[in-house]
Amino acid sequence: MADKLLKLGIPAGSLQEATAELFRKAGYNIKFSSRSYFPSIDDDEIECLSIRAQEMARYVQQGILDAGITGHDWVVETGADVHEVCELVFSKVSRRPVRWVLAVPNDSDIKSVKDLEGKRIATEAVGLTKMYLEKHGVNADVEFSWGATEVKPPRLVDAIVEVTETGSSLRANNLRIVDEVLESTTRLIANKNAFEDDWKAQKLNNIALMLQSCLAAEGKVGLMLNVRRSDLQKVLEGLPALQQPTVSNLSDPDWVAINTILDESVVRAIIPALREAGATGIVEFPINKIID
Amino acid sequence: MADKLLKLGIPAGSLQEATAELFRKAGYNIKFSSRSYFPSIDDDEIECLSIRAQEMARYVQQGILDAGITGHDWVVETGADVHEVCELVFSKVSRRPVRWVLAVPNDSDIKSVKDLEGKRIATEAVGLTKMYLEKHGVNADVEFSWGATEVKPPRLVDAIVEVTETGSSLRANNLRIVDEVLESTTRLIANKNAFEDDWKAQKLNNIALMLQSCLAAEGKVGLMLNVRRSDLQKVLEGLPALQQPTVSNLSDPDWVAINTILDESVVRAIIPALREAGATGIVEFPINKIID
Amino acid sequence: MADKLLKLGIPAGSLQEATAELFRKAGYNIKFSSRSYFPSIDDDEIECLSIRAQEMARYVQQGILDAGITGHDWVVETGADVHEVCELVFSKVSRRPVRWVLAVPNDSDIKSVKDLEGKRIATEAVGLTKMYLEKHGVNADVEFSWGATEVKPPRLVDAIVEVTETGSSLRANNLRIVDEVLESTTRLIANKNAFEDDWKAQKLNNIALMLQSCLAAEGKVGLMLNVRRSDLQKVLEGLPALQQPTVSNLSDPDWVAINTILDESVVRAIIPALREAGATGIVEFPINKIID
Amino acid sequence: MADKLLKLGIPAGSLQEATAELFRKAGYNIKFSSRSYFPSIDDDEIECLSIRAQEMARYVQQGILDAGITGHDWVVETGADVHEVCELVFSKVSRRPVRWVLAVPNDSDIKSVKDLEGKRIATEAVGLTKMYLEKHGVNADVEFSWGATEVKPPRLVDAIVEVTETGSSLRANNLRIVDEVLESTTRLIANKNAFEDDWKAQKLNNIALMLQSCLAAEGKVGLMLNVRRSDLQKVLEGLPALQQPTVSNLSDPDWVAINTILDESVVRAIIPALREAGATGIVEFPINKIID
Amino acid sequence: MADKLLKLGIPAGSLQEATAELFRKAGYNIKFSSRSYFPSIDDDEIECLSIRAQEMARYVQQGILDAGITGHDWVVETGADVHEVCELVFSKVSRRPVRWVLAVPNDSDIKSVKDLEGKRIATEAVGLTKMYLEKHGVNADVEFSWGATEVKPPRLVDAIVEVTETGSSLRANNLRIVDEVLESTTRLIANKNAFEDDWKAQKLNNIALMLQSCLAAEGKVGLMLNVRRSDLQKVLEGLPALQQPTVSNLSDPDWVAINTILDESVVRAIIPALREAGATGIVEFPINKIID
Amino acid sequence: MADKLLKLGIPAGSLQEATAELFRKAGYNIKFSSRSYFPSIDDDEIECLSIRAQEMARYVQQGILDAGITGHDWVVETGADVHEVCELVFSKVSRRPVRWVLAVPNDSDIKSVKDLEGKRIATEAVGLTKMYLEKHGVNADVEFSWGATEVKPPRLVDAIVEVTETGSSLRANNLRIVDEVLESTTRLIANKNAFEDDWKAQKLNNIALMLQSCLAAEGKVGLMLNVRRSDLQKVLEGLPALQQPTVSNLSDPDWVAINTILDESVVRAIIPALREAGATGIVEFPINKIID
Repeated sequence: MADKLLKLGIPAGSLQEATAELFRKAGYNIKFSSRSYFPSIDDDEIECLSIRAQEMARYVQQGILDAGITGHDWVVETGADVHEVCELVFSKVSRRPVRWVLAVPNDSDIKSVKDLEGKRIATEAVGLTKMYLEKHGVNADVEFSWGATEVKPPRLVDAIVEVTETGSSLRANNLRIVDEVLESTTRLIANKNAFEDDWKAQKLNNIALMLQSCLAAEGKVGLMLNVRRSDLQKVLEGLPALQQPTVSNLSDPDWVAINTILDESVVRAIIPALREAGATGIVEFPINKIID
Repeated sequence: MADKLLKLGIPAGSLQEATAELFRKAGYNIKFSSRSYFPSIDDDEIECLSIRAQEMARYVQQGILDAGITGHDWVVETGADVHEVCELVFSKVSRRPVRWVLAVPNDSDIKSVKDLEGKRIATEAVGLTKMYLEKHGVNADVEFSWGATEVKPPRLVDAIVEVTETGSSLRANNLRIVDEVLESTTRLIANKNAFEDDWKAQKLNNIALMLQSCLAAEGKVGLMLNVRRSDLQKVLEGLPALQQPTVSNLSDPDWVAINTILDESVVRAIIPALREAGATGIVEFPINKIID
Repeated sequence: MADKLLKLGIPAGSLQEATAELFRKAGYNIKFSSRSYFPSIDDDEIECLSIRAQEMARYVQQGILDAGITGHDWVVETGADVHEVCELVFSKVSRRPVRWVLAVPNDSDIKSVKDLEGKRIATEAVGLTKMYLEKHGVNADVEFSWGATEVKPPRLVDAIVEVTETGSSLRANNLRIVDEVLESTTRLIANKNAFEDDWKAQKLNNIALMLQSCLAAEGKVGLMLNVRRSDLQKVLEGLPALQQPTVSNLSDPDWVAINTILDESVVRAIIPALREAGATGIVEFPINKIID
Repeated sequence: MADKLLKLGIPAGSLQEATAELFRKAGYNIKFSSRSYFPSIDDDEIECLSIRAQEMARYVQQGILDAGITGHDWVVETGADVHEVCELVFSKVSRRPVRWVLAVPNDSDIKSVKDLEGKRIATEAVGLTKMYLEKHGVNADVEFSWGATEVKPPRLVDAIVEVTETGSSLRANNLRIVDEVLESTTRLIANKNAFEDDWKAQKLNNIALMLQSCLAAEGKVGLMLNVRRSDLQKVLEGLPALQQPTVSNLSDPDWVAINTILDESVVRAIIPALREAGATGIVEFPINKIID
Repeated sequence: MADKLLKLGIPAGSLQEATAELFRKAGYNIKFSSRSYFPSIDDDEIECLSIRAQEMARYVQQGILDAGITGHDWVVETGADVHEVCELVFSKVSRRPVRWVLAVPNDSDIKSVKDLEGKRIATEAVGLTKMYLEKHGVNADVEFSWGATEVKPPRLVDAIVEVTETGSSLRANNLRIVDEVLESTTRLIANKNAFEDDWKAQKLNNIALMLQSCLAAEGKVGLMLNVRRSDLQKVLEGLPALQQPTVSNLSDPDWVAINTILDESVVRAIIPALREAGATGIVEFPINKIID
Repeated sequence: MADKLLKLGIPAGSLQEATAELFRKAGYNIKFSSRSYFPSIDDDEIECLSIRAQEMARYVQQGILDAGITGHDWVVETGADVHEVCELVFSKVSRRPVRWVLAVPNDSDIKSVKDLEGKRIATEAVGLTKMYLEKHGVNADVEFSWGATEVKPPRLVDAIVEVTETGSSLRANNLRIVDEVLESTTRLIANKNAFEDDWKAQKLNNIALMLQSCLAAEGKVGLMLNVRRSDLQKVLEGLPALQQPTVSNLSDPDWVAINTILDESVVRAIIPALREAGATGIVEFPINKIID
């Protein structure tokens, strides 16, 4: 088994449930135990380790893990030299990319990164912040923040570098975004040596394919409908080009059936048009995965 | 944007979640904020306002809203002059029409509306109740009830006019239904002037189409099965006429595939019969929307 | 109605929700009331009674019930003489067969059932345990346990006969499994006289068919994909033989569509292979029921 | 029993729990049943009825109730002619008097009640609002609001008359308080005829005494301490005059013990001073009721 | 330690929390672990075992336990020969004695125990029921009920023997109480041999004293007040004789202080009378334990 | 107000609730808002700031805060030079001192700190750990752990320095304690300059006095009892010397009353003895604060 085991890091904390759910949809059943950092998985070729997202890249680089799921931000923060297998682009609103931003009080004099010279900055990402300041040739004190960073200015610090999705927590604390430091999404990363092993690379590519087929299906639905052969062209023109629609013959030679995949958000606009164009028996159905 | 904005009232309170869920299924994402009565919606042509069902018709009639979702009962109660775009008929048990009924204690002498002469009646729908009494030529005191109406007789009042779905709350309070005052379902209503605007009428009709396609799909499922061409007629006869089944050619010319939509409640009776008639590979699958 | 009424026992307690959910999927809506042991069901030909799994077989044998859902273990425990209509084999992990096992403290001298001679055994299944001892010709004291049986050895008793799914509760109490006494799954059982009535037998067989079609669909998904006619054979070879795939003609004569049902757990292995073999437009969709 | 029964209204809704808790502290055990509006009480001379605070005064005036607990605001709103037995002044922060205020959008032109002429006002207290407008000689439309009144300006109405404790909900909706319409606390009210009955008046006065002894004890604590007779005067001077401290002789004739009641909020200032003045063995203990 | 260890059974299940809370008030801190039936206690001379109330008497009689807390009903049911150290009489409403009663459907012909001849009875207390029937010379089938006994008549059995506190569950199932079979309270029981050991008897008596001092204090409060020496007699006459009031000299020789313990339920009647009789500075305070 | 304002840091996170509760008992009402790090306090001379315990000492040293509540461990970790006003010794089990310990896997070869040479250690207290290693002249890699430190050995690191109360989390992860690095309790710390200000020092000393009077009262109760003067000596000898008992004269010259404070945990042993010695009317009552 030695050669055929992939050591895979699963992020603990806020990403844990979303990751396990994505794997579950992809067909892998991961179970966490409160007493172990080895979650079980129903694939004998994988051994999972539960590790904080912040520490994932470090352990992947060191080879303690073959691969892991973590945010791009923490890869950059730790400066780890790892291979990125794929980006996991979530389409749902609640899974937008996160942004690390430089923020200051609304009424601060700081208008750009240049104004930070000699100031004090709190952040959970000290490495990231120092790289950013260096890139702009600015000298400032960067102190590690144990949390609740957004409540610190102006009393405790002059500025912060903090992660945000919608900016609402910043606004609620009367902070203004000065600059974006980094945009980050979730990634499947691998140890560079491990990825040179054919079996491990193939295994990781298959995992990536399945995870991405689930992500691709999020916010999408299937649509089946019937149409007279004479109306077919008009109906096909009304469908977006997301995926080639499947047109099949019905036993009545004057009719065909169409089966296609649509973004859930366009269905409300397309269905009235399809009906107008002659489609009948329109049925929308849920889907789990799509692979083009 | 002025001409292309539909001001739509979403009912606050008990109907809020059901309405938002129905819109979500129809492809519209409505989000409520605890600090605003302007829920956001992912359609730039719609502006939502969160308003109590009881007050909806009043504000639609006044033109403060172009349209709104509310119960037929509150349209009648307020006597508002509005256009009804469509009824939203829910098929699920928990979404039955509600009934406003005249109820009295089990051992009351009141046997019909005529016996209310000179009595005291508590209700949350004072207007509705007065119209009802007037129609029957009865004079009685109608007092507004702030709630818990069903516990008031006989100590505080002689009778009540109260809304009920299953009658269980009335029975639990030892009340007997004397008469039905009004049956009510949910409606999409529009301001009459607004509905004369072509763009708004078209927009409302499309919304109505999508909402109804979701309601039509509730309690329904898809069924796919294969059958020998020689058994086709027998199998088709066993299917209810809800929607024309789609019959498609398989690569084996002796077989065809059938795809159809059924009421979930008849599936348990139909599947054994279909199997008897020669159907194989029967698979039931969930659906989201249907438009005939 | 007298001849056309099936009296059906629904297990109260831990099996209640799972049973009601299975019936719901099968198209029967069972509703429990906190004040009655007659749950309602939306089938006028069935009258449900809510009865403890332990007592089900007794009341079915006596004819107070025509049929009921219970565990095989309790049928054996009570020694009831009933007809088994079908086994309800759940495929999900959380619904594995349960096992009644003989367990002793890790450091006990008891190595086999033979070592129980003269010992004291606690169990909730006194009948089952006595049968088991008798079969092995062993004399021992069997005392009824009101619960928490697994904490009793070694202080209160020498051994226990206890139900387990994963064995984790036994391990946590430092107990070792000596022998399996009985493996048990859920069954639909019928009174023998009742099952000789044609109408009741037919009704029970239909119920069994629907319940089993839902169980068969658990952990399975549908897969639809398109393939060039020239790649068809290669693709079909890559599909497991769970169910005959449906191959249908598309309007483009060079292509066919395939629709099939797969175990969710093999999808992750099959999709990469299908894609390799030329499949396009692969879509996985959820299903509710399958009947071969 | 007829002459010796006090019919007492207990407010349903938001005041119910606080009222029951106050009675419980006062030694009366009230129990609510979900199926009856007659809560039980462990005093055979009292019959409780659960009634909405808004309707309490109406039913007390009509004599359906002898007495009831409700807010002063609803007495005024309904214009009921009742006897006020006592005010129930809660000292805790969360039980401050409520205020009905006239509020308008922050950027409204309305600066005083005079500016309401011809405007539209939403409120749950239509009677109160009309009295207020009349007192100021202003004509305006007052419409009944079913709730969420504070979100209505400016879109739906020009101003509101709404109840508030801290004003935070108004601020959150960008509303500005223009005027206070009424400040209101909880009251024990009685029917005027009932209060002329000696037994009922005595009963109500005793209830009032007990309720007030509990309210008086809220936020207060007992303090016991020992002091040399020679330091007594100095120590006594350091104690606030809330209640005459009890000074008792100890067996050691040089020492006395002091026992007194203090506001919890002054203890933190007084204890350091007492200690300074020579007090020893200072112990603070909780109390339930005080009657001066 | 061997001779100085008391093995004490703590009831698992519904009595566990109440028992632990009573011990906690009495000064013993018992902690339960989900993985052990040996709860810890902060007294090195006691070893706790967590055991079902139904099985307690059996294990105390066998000497596996020196003593235990259980209901009198289960002592009778198991016919165990044990020493009763004390009854634990709870004064609170929610801790009333429980009653085992014979109950039948409201419309049953069974009017007394004599009418049970040849009938079928379900109960969780088979031993108790058989003793009861034997005492009345009645022959009937008694079957063990695994729970939900009160829903069984009339369909499954003719009568039940069931435990009840308020009778509300029986009424809700349309059952009528025919006879009381046994009234039961909680007891501290001891193994007879163990209680002959002086150390164990002394230990158990001390535990009993402390538990009872807490129970005695439930529903009681302390009252302190000052009174002129001349009014002393009148005030003392107004106090119930629960405990001799403590009258102490104040530094002002004309006044005395009274400190006494009262039932919480009489305070509401006594305080107005005390005040009338000249008492001042009346303060009610909570107490934890009383030992007369 | 400038000179008369104490800026006080309240720890956010796990200590927040316990700190607020302790202040509440001491007579200070602190309220947290989810939108601000300035909790309100009902003392105009104090301004609270909510700050993580880990960062408290840093900001107190810098003078951004005058004083703060934090653990001794974080003072050491940050090496901050601050004045310790008082230790806050909690007597309750759940508030025991915490210990930072060096722990390794049960089967590790590491037996003492000396064996750490060249090893890798994970910890949340990097400063503390480095000081500890330096003191012992050991060189090792210390890496910052973002949490879940106890699951890291042996796979990710060789040893950890981790905080523990009961050691149960370490045991559950199969770790063995090698050495104690630091024992820590909660402290009230002050900026050294601020503490030289008389007003601030006095204010902090008063706060310390009140907080400690509450802590001293935890787990203690009051006891009052009467005794014949002739039995007084015997009874007094049976009382522990925690606080001088108060002996007061009763109106009956043959009797005296005793009032004293006891540890709750000794009451169960003392009451039987007091009763034996002649005490009567023994009453235990709860207390809030004690200052000797």
